[in-house]
Amino acid sequence: MRIAVFGTGSVGRAIAARTAELGHQVTIGTRDVATTRAGEYAAWAAQHPEVGLATQADAAVDADLVVNATSGDGSLPALTAAGAANLSGKIVLDISNPLDFGAGFPPTLSVHNTDSLAERIQREFPQTKVVKSLNTLTAELMVRPRQLADGAHSVFVSGDDAEAKRIVTELLVSFGHTDVIDLGDISTARGVEMLLPLWLRLYGRLDTAMFNIKVVR
Amino acid sequence: MRIAVFGTGSVGRAIAARTAELGHQVTIGTRDVATTRAGEYAAWAAQHPEVGLATQADAAVDADLVVNATSGDGSLPALTAAGAANLSGKIVLDISNPLDFGAGFPPTLSVHNTDSLAERIQREFPQTKVVKSLNTLTAELMVRPRQLADGAHSVFVSGDDAEAKRIVTELLVSFGHTDVIDLGDISTARGVEMLLPLWLRLYGRLDTAMFNIKVVR
Repeated sequence: MRIAVFGTGSVGRAIAARTAELGHQVTIGTRDVATTRAGEYAAWAAQHPEVGLATQADAAVDADLVVNATSGDGSLPALTAAGAANLSGKIVLDISNPLDFGAGFPPTLSVHNTDSLAERIQREFPQTKVVKSLNTLTAELMVRPRQLADGAHSVFVSGDDAEAKRIVTELLVSFGHTDVIDLGDISTARGVEMLLPLWLRLYGRLDTAMFNIKVVR
Repeated sequence: MRIAVFGTGSVGRAIAARTAELGHQVTIGTRDVATTRAGEYAAWAAQHPEVGLATQADAAVDADLVVNATSGDGSLPALTAAGAANLSGKIVLDISNPLDFGAGFPPTLSVHNTDSLAERIQREFPQTKVVKSLNTLTAELMVRPRQLADGAHSVFVSGDDAEAKRIVTELLVSFGHTDVIDLGDISTARGVEMLLPLWLRLYGRLDTAMFNIKVVR
């Protein structure tokens, strides 16, 4: 697939490197290409010459799948910068969490309970097929789940479009995921976004981000 | 221990029967003893003659540990009916979930994100030692976790009082729990209460309540 990844942080880089390694054609989309290239991104880029860098609009226009790996409050601006026309008809794999650090750590959620960030994105860009997934894991485990208990843990997909969920599920399986649970429509993203407060407390308690939940049944 | 259980529903009954079976002295506390006795509770009570029935105040006054197994919106009324003086110094094991069915199924949460029901109880009854636990499981698995994967799944405790958490943890282990994770102070109850939206979707998806999450690390 041709994949555009929005977000130059650890999640964006992990997804870009892994999907490129798996043979996809990957371009990272950023607000300002020159600024990104001039920053500490350069060292990572030098090690990953196979990953392109372009504006969000240029990255999106040719993509089959757009990965939203921006911060929660950066998500709608990034997708808006890409342009609804460039995103039209495409799968948006939304990995972001609507974390609000306004009151320090642990953050609260800026959207929750009766809405979710994934639903906001779907409403704002109705011509896209939003699939929420991977937001419940640390970046390293998103893309290499077999590092932990040989992959014996769970990941979720939420979305209104069955074919888009199928394609995302296939991508997750190619990463090494063994238990992908389809929760249902995009409103089920509330559940996985609201898992974050527990995740953050476990992170503090276990003193590592290398954990995940398994749905035992 | 002398245990008072508030709540005559499936959770209260499961906790009462199991703790009595384990040798504790158990009394269920209810608003109106005569009404409860006259209802369908009678059939269950006939099978569990070892479990007492009393008003919430009478059940609480002699108890070492009070289990709040009422519905979310019944919690503060039940504890208020018991009386702050009767609860003073006692452990309150809070199992309830602040579910709001106002908009149908799945319910939303009436408290969330910057507060939790457990914190409300702790604030309202500062002389008690509130421990949040077990709210992330179906009743049958709360008290007999070995039924599922021989107990290879997780349960959480949240609370400000270390000794109260130790006593609750011991009780959970006596039920058969093998992985009790102490998340920290009572504010960490937000995380386990906010797990409910995901739990409810999994319940719908898996078509059974006999599942639980395991924290794989």
